[in-house]
Amino acid sequence: MRRLFIALLFGLVATPAMAQKQPIALRDMGSFHIGGRTIEITGQPIKEVVFTPGGVPAKIDPNGVYQVEQMYVQYFLPQNRKGKLPLLMWHGGGLTGVTYETTPDGREGWLTMFIRHGWDTYISDAMERGRSGWTTTFKGDPLFLPLGDPWERFRIGPAGSWNADKAKRVTYPGTQFPIEGYEQFMKQGVPRWTTTDKEIVAAYIALVDKICPCVVMVHSQSGTFGFQVAEARPDKVKALIAVEPTLGGDRNKVALLKNTPVAMIYGDNAKDHPRWARIRQGGVDYAGVLKAAGGSIDVVDLPDAGIKGNSHMLMMDKNNGAIADLIQKWLASKGLVD
Amino acid sequence: MRRLFIALLFGLVATPAMAQKQPIALRDMGSFHIGGRTIEITGQPIKEVVFTPGGVPAKIDPNGVYQVEQMYVQYFLPQNRKGKLPLLMWHGGGLTGVTYETTPDGREGWLTMFIRHGWDTYISDAMERGRSGWTTTFKGDPLFLPLGDPWERFRIGPAGSWNADKAKRVTYPGTQFPIEGYEQFMKQGVPRWTTTDKEIVAAYIALVDKICPCVVMVHSQSGTFGFQVAEARPDKVKALIAVEPTLGGDRNKVALLKNTPVAMIYGDNAKDHPRWARIRQGGVDYAGVLKAAGGSIDVVDLPDAGIKGNSHMLMMDKNNGAIADLIQKWLASKGLVD
Repeated sequence: MRRLFIALLFGLVATPAMAQKQPIALRDMGSFHIGGRTIEITGQPIKEVVFTPGGVPAKIDPNGVYQVEQMYVQYFLPQNRKGKLPLLMWHGGGLTGVTYETTPDGREGWLTMFIRHGWDTYISDAMERGRSGWTTTFKGDPLFLPLGDPWERFRIGPAGSWNADKAKRVTYPGTQFPIEGYEQFMKQGVPRWTTTDKEIVAAYIALVDKICPCVVMVHSQSGTFGFQVAEARPDKVKALIAVEPTLGGDRNKVALLKNTPVAMIYGDNAKDHPRWARIRQGGVDYAGVLKAAGGSIDVVDLPDAGIKGNSHMLMMDKNNGAIADLIQKWLASKGLVD
Repeated sequence: MRRLFIALLFGLVATPAMAQKQPIALRDMGSFHIGGRTIEITGQPIKEVVFTPGGVPAKIDPNGVYQVEQMYVQYFLPQNRKGKLPLLMWHGGGLTGVTYETTPDGREGWLTMFIRHGWDTYISDAMERGRSGWTTTFKGDPLFLPLGDPWERFRIGPAGSWNADKAKRVTYPGTQFPIEGYEQFMKQGVPRWTTTDKEIVAAYIALVDKICPCVVMVHSQSGTFGFQVAEARPDKVKALIAVEPTLGGDRNKVALLKNTPVAMIYGDNAKDHPRWARIRQGGVDYAGVLKAAGGSIDVVDLPDAGIKGNSHMLMMDKNNGAIADLIQKWLASKGLVD
């Protein structure tokens, strides 16, 4: 009886009478910051700060030690664990862990899909972004993206297809990106630097050292980080899911990844897009080198698998569930699902 | 049988055989961004950006429309809802929603405590901080806090008690702040401006207009925001829990809050701390004005209620559960718990 009840509660037994969305049962959830270092600032004058207009002033001595370059991690541990290892989800450039949460048009995202699949899921904001905070120690200026920039760069529409007027925007035929949520998607963006890879990777390594062995899922910019961290901790990254990575790994270090199966997934129109054709080819070439060295890597062009219309933001696209299922099957095929 | 099983699962029936920590069952969880506006930037040169060292360059035209000043909100909706209204949790200055998550020494925080109490909980990062992002439109420079600053300002130790050497730090006698987690607490900090109250409040009002009627919980800087938003939307903020607010409301607008019960909670040593004595007195004086106008406000000095040793960060203190229970009882006394 107890077993049947739990099965019903967690949706293991399909009954037409139950609501479509099953509850999410967690044995725990929480968060922490990890990594970073301290720096010292000296020789600055003491400031009087009124934090709140009308509030009581405070004297702030800006001299002293500062905490910098840490990373925020939020975790959700399902009651009904099925993934054999923790799953770490790392987002792309100019974004945060929000990438994997509710889609911009309000549908379920990959975070809860993979929790429902039974994965202990750790979702982080890369060092410098979101809840990780940022510091004045970064070199150069941060980059802010205008509203239209990702429309073409993330392959929602072809070159010249962006228009500030919603009615005049053009998409690739059959795009899966939820264009009604495009403005909401752009609200997810945060400033990013292009000079902080080393510090970002250091924080990810600190996370891997704490949580892993594990499976790492990366997207776009964090593709680079995923390979770098797997090369640094090949015994701890037991599988790497690279969703539209901007770069593969280091061709001189492929021998290190022999025991880390890799899935490399590309959406639609990547082969023809002027910039993405080069990015994808870089990944395909890297996969060849890794395979030749005895590594295990599956390059999946979704259109070739019959899954069409995907943008760069696969986890938000309307068919995000189908792609999550494909990844789940790949993980099961690698023996990582109970 | 089914009822008993659900009762067991949600900890309604205490049995010694069960683990201390009950699972958290959610009927849904997710996130969204709300509020903000667009601005236009013109006359800038086109840049070629290499996002990732070794990556394929992209041309970025910085001219165009930008999304700014939105706010991030994450929500958790318990399966076993008992709070009659949604509960919105707003953090203090230089911090994010992480304030209410796992405490810096790894114990359970108020977020999951109130989810377990059955509240539909919406936790946000104030406009400009964390996953809300930030923009170059803010006036002035952001403020970064050195490691030692909050030690005395947040009443962990008295004046002169901070020391970079952990062994030499002094606390108030019997402090409840988990000092072994102080460095971890400082990793939660993010840069903050002191010029953005108007934009922060605008985003909170957008949230209240979407989610409420509701209960709003505020802390420190957001005390100011909570009162301002309640004055702007008195029909929607049905109760206000002001945890160590830096300011009360507008004394000229107390009539608006007649139907919004308020709890104002202060920790230990607030009456004697040079800056906090003034802050607290401001709150007490405001409470007097609100009461005289027929409002309902309970000022709770925790030491007078027998709860001693609390710092400014009550939700992280070692007795955070006792204070959450006190708030829960207050909410129940206002008829807000089923």
